[in-house]
Amino acid sequence: MKRTFILALSLAGTAALFGQDPQYTKDGSLVMPKDYREWIFLSSGLGMTYGPAGQTDAAGNPRFDNVFVNPSAYKAFLKNGTWPDKTVLILEIRRSESKLSINTGGRVQTELAAIEANVKDTARFPGGWAFFGFQGSSNEAKLIPTSEGCYSCHGQKGAVDSTFVQFYPTLREIAKKKGTFKSTE
Amino acid sequence: MKRTFILALSLAGTAALFGQDPQYTKDGSLVMPKDYREWIFLSSGLGMTYGPAGQTDAAGNPRFDNVFVNPSAYKAFLKNGTWPDKTVLILEIRRSESKLSINTGGRVQTELAAIEANVKDTARFPGGWAFFGFQGSSNEAKLIPTSEGCYSCHGQKGAVDSTFVQFYPTLREIAKKKGTFKSTE
Repeated sequence: MKRTFILALSLAGTAALFGQDPQYTKDGSLVMPKDYREWIFLSSGLGMTYGPAGQTDAAGNPRFDNVFVNPSAYKAFLKNGTWPDKTVLILEIRRSESKLSINTGGRVQTELAAIEANVKDTARFPGGWAFFGFQGSSNEAKLIPTSEGCYSCHGQKGAVDSTFVQFYPTLREIAKKKGTFKSTE
Repeated sequence: MKRTFILALSLAGTAALFGQDPQYTKDGSLVMPKDYREWIFLSSGLGMTYGPAGQTDAAGNPRFDNVFVNPSAYKAFLKNGTWPDKTVLILEIRRSESKLSINTGGRVQTELAAIEANVKDTARFPGGWAFFGFQGSSNEAKLIPTSEGCYSCHGQKGAVDSTFVQFYPTLREIAKKKGTFKSTE
């Protein structure tokens, strides 16, 4: 009996480390995964033209976008070259500055500008995936309607399973080896 | 007896998840932490002028630098606002491209260009920290001599404990709250 208890504790600890399945509110919003900065980093871009929040801010400074994924989905991707159900991708958009501390050129990341999420939950969403946008400091993100361009663009141009793996340099190589990479170039 | 065995397995699993202390070869080189892409991402910059490997490649394309830290050191920083002994910071430098897939502007990350490490090991290094550079596809990084500029620059201009926390937006705020942030602006 005590052995079972210890094992259960261990499994619970592992689940906490790896994050959990996506959580929703009663009205279908996504609850912000508070620990996403401890998830797996996939890549960042600067001023990418496909960026959902625009490539620059009002002052003309380009924005960085950082992409993170929940660790259990990452482990599955390494093994299979595609995403499992309950994958959560977080797109964190940050402002940039050039002259900061000793840096005098190029761009460094500063304040948070926006957070979006792309969630795979096949029992819940037609097509498998849904997009959510966090507003301000809210901990809940509203579902972005399927009529928005992100759905069709990801479906048509995403290299793996409606996601932009072409922009994630380490996963790009894995998907090519596993034969799951759809060329969009 | 069996209970002890289960608990030991659990602890071993946790150590593997969080990475381990830095490992060295007999001649004092650092062994590459193979799982650093599963560590905690701190930030990235593009074409930063302070970059040790230069801000652009031979063709004039700016480089991205991604910084990762071992998870146990990150957890300690969240708590204390500074780095514990055995902290390993990895600086991963990647080439950039502009026109890739559907992207037509800005910059996205592509091939690996270089990897450097900054290690805190107070029993081993005078001053606490040492820098290492990985050459090509080698799994071992040679110690960079303390006469190199990275040591004096980090010591003088690093906002927290000889490290450039001023460029890591989430840790920057934590260090300021904890009173460990040294302004360099």
